Amino acid sequence: MNIILLSGGSGKRLWPLSNDIRSKQFIKIFKKEDGSYESMLQKVYGQIKKVDSEAKVTIATSSTQVSSIHNQLGTQVGISVEPCRRDTFPAIALATAYLVDVMKVSPEEAVVVCPVDPYVNDDYFEALKELSIQAGKGEANLVLMGIEPTYPSEKYGYIIPESKDFTSMVSTFKEKPTVDVAKEYISKGALWNGGVFAYKLGYVLNKAHELIDFKDYYDLFAKYESLTKISFDYAVVEKEDKIQVQRFSGEWKDIGTWNTLTEAMEESIIGKGVMNDTCSKVQIINEMDVPVLAMGLSDVVICASSEGILVSDKEQSSYIKPYVDSFVQQIMFAEKSWGSYKVIDVESGSMTIKVTLNPGNKMNYHSHKNRDEVWVVLSGQGRTIVDGFEQKVKAGDVIAMNAGCKHTVVADTELKLIEVQLGEAISVEDKEKHELD
Amino acid sequence: MNIILLSGGSGKRLWPLSNDIRSKQFIKIFKKEDGSYESMLQKVYGQIKKVDSEAKVTIATSSTQVSSIHNQLGTQVGISVEPCRRDTFPAIALATAYLVDVMKVSPEEAVVVCPVDPYVNDDYFEALKELSIQAGKGEANLVLMGIEPTYPSEKYGYIIPESKDFTSMVSTFKEKPTVDVAKEYISKGALWNGGVFAYKLGYVLNKAHELIDFKDYYDLFAKYESLTKISFDYAVVEKEDKIQVQRFSGEWKDIGTWNTLTEAMEESIIGKGVMNDTCSKVQIINEMDVPVLAMGLSDVVICASSEGILVSDKEQSSYIKPYVDSFVQQIMFAEKSWGSYKVIDVESGSMTIKVTLNPGNKMNYHSHKNRDEVWVVLSGQGRTIVDGFEQKVKAGDVIAMNAGCKHTVVADTELKLIEVQLGEAISVEDKEKHELD
Repeated sequence: MNIILLSGGSGKRLWPLSNDIRSKQFIKIFKKEDGSYESMLQKVYGQIKKVDSEAKVTIATSSTQVSSIHNQLGTQVGISVEPCRRDTFPAIALATAYLVDVMKVSPEEAVVVCPVDPYVNDDYFEALKELSIQAGKGEANLVLMGIEPTYPSEKYGYIIPESKDFTSMVSTFKEKPTVDVAKEYISKGALWNGGVFAYKLGYVLNKAHELIDFKDYYDLFAKYESLTKISFDYAVVEKEDKIQVQRFSGEWKDIGTWNTLTEAMEESIIGKGVMNDTCSKVQIINEMDVPVLAMGLSDVVICASSEGILVSDKEQSSYIKPYVDSFVQQIMFAEKSWGSYKVIDVESGSMTIKVTLNPGNKMNYHSHKNRDEVWVVLSGQGRTIVDGFEQKVKAGDVIAMNAGCKHTVVADTELKLIEVQLGEAISVEDKEKHELD
Repeated sequence: MNIILLSGGSGKRLWPLSNDIRSKQFIKIFKKEDGSYESMLQKVYGQIKKVDSEAKVTIATSSTQVSSIHNQLGTQVGISVEPCRRDTFPAIALATAYLVDVMKVSPEEAVVVCPVDPYVNDDYFEALKELSIQAGKGEANLVLMGIEPTYPSEKYGYIIPESKDFTSMVSTFKEKPTVDVAKEYISKGALWNGGVFAYKLGYVLNKAHELIDFKDYYDLFAKYESLTKISFDYAVVEKEDKIQVQRFSGEWKDIGTWNTLTEAMEESIIGKGVMNDTCSKVQIINEMDVPVLAMGLSDVVICASSEGILVSDKEQSSYIKPYVDSFVQQIMFAEKSWGSYKVIDVESGSMTIKVTLNPGNKMNYHSHKNRDEVWVVLSGQGRTIVDGFEQKVKAGDVIAMNAGCKHTVVADTELKLIEVQLGEAISVEDKEKHELD
């Protein structure tokens, strides 16, 4: 099947694990059989490939997430990069055009569009395959996933099907209701709208051409910034008569808050942590190198990362956003396509970071206007290129670079280094990329 | 007055603020009028000097605390360093000999011995002065402080006075009792033993000579390791008939646990922290550079430092010790006589620390057998001396030192640097001091 994963979100609700550039789908919190951890993105990608090893996966996302996606999935995955945020209709149109014009998929083929972060079992992805097959039949222009409700939720939109069959035409949609209204809907056979839809690529391309004047993917990409913000629901779904829905009754969780995320966690402690036996329903997620000790707590989540420390009653944790918005702080940790970095010291006039490059990877060849830098190699082997001069480096080697000097480092094995940045206006914006001759 | 402050303790009960080398008396947690914070040691020293600007203060302590004392009080304070721990009688005998033989105080003068960390008002130190004056009169060989009990505590020893006068002869001592027995003592006019005693220097010197064969302070210091461990109470107090007690009814708190320490704190947040309005009786003490966010908690103390993170119900916090004992971890922060250092990154084969030197200070001239080091100066001005070669340094300068190389840095202004240590067996023990030619 063809599948487009919508990957958005700034992820403040899971602070301090998520931040402006690390959205929740990139947090490695799910334990694998080998004892290591994977992210929601990695988990979902693995599930798709397990259900359909031939699946063509395209991730629709913003440029800020490209490095993290490459870091976590490698470069085999397709990425449709939105030059800026323009809501779901332009994003889905762009990804659809990408599949046809770049990936050369026939407009007659079907595609399934799905959020990047459902917490589900493999049967969910089997259901997506069914959805895709159904869309390919062309009985309807859109095929949606209708999730069998387990309680009268106010959080979801509802789909009213015409029949109780596995596949049914959609009668109508209902916005997020009150609990009482939700009960009424459910008694009439309503389903939760899971935010998933399947269609033939040509269908959405035609809709896009009706609303936007563009030639192909490349043209659409070029004029993306000029597009109107409009949701796929508003631009397409609400105006379409021929919509089918397929029922899904498997497990399905939305884990957007600490409360729901900790419910989905198998372990009570990730990272260095100890709790005494007077603790109950406490969870510790600790990305720091030093231990967390919890004593005498109930229903509390403790999370520590380079960004900060959260200690919250689980119920209260859903109200986190305004507090996190109030923190004025630079990014302390980031995944890059070549590895990752962590800020380990901040002073007025200097910043010290620890850089880890994955084997075979290298930074962009770049320079800074307003800061000098010093690298001290901690471990691994590689090569630095400084103003065109290439040099082998190993643990203990020191490379001093003045402002303006072009530089990069290539990791032959995993390579770790301390980078000391010195200057009065240190900023991630102060970076000019250069071509290597 | 002459005063000996007994400064001991490894301070695990206040982890992660205290550790093996930073005892609780050095934690800067008490807000001064200018908004900055001072430690219990600094607070007590300031109180003594306020009550008696001529007071001669000697701190009896182990060598591990000397750097912190100099860092916090400068070098004007007398320090009687115990070469090893031998309980209170040898410690008090050594400090007494120090006053007579080094500070040249007459054996006829009185001295007050007091713990370094009472949480009290100035009236307590006025009372110490009274104690000293009383001891100088020679009516008794020892004068103790008896604290008016506020509840039938099981935590303290009791002094039974002969009369209810301000100054009274002591009838007898009682060990820590049960609550019921404590009630009975109190009904008979018993006082808490505050662990304070005043005496004429010559009295304790004579007692020491009776029990130990030594000439003077220097001789006692030299044979300190061979001394028997014995408490002052057991060696002197219990055998003495002529003991007086003076009553003290002012505020007096023992702040050895998080529960009692947070009670004594004026503020609910020290450092970067935010709590929402569903928090009650929560205290945040955060020494990290990133924020702590607390939500929906009651009666909880949150403390974060380079050593770790504690989140504990206040009542439960008194049971912290065995958990902290179980953490196998190197020291992550230390105050030195010349400034301080903080470990900011630990890897197998390397450790990165941030060093802050106070103006006019310098490290010992030293070398390491098993590690190379790289210094990157972040700010300030000073001079490095490497294998005898002196060089001015400023922000951005890099100094690389191989194992075996002798080195030091002198701070002309406050000087901060990043030190990257590289080697397979990095240890604070791997340090050889050298004379500067």
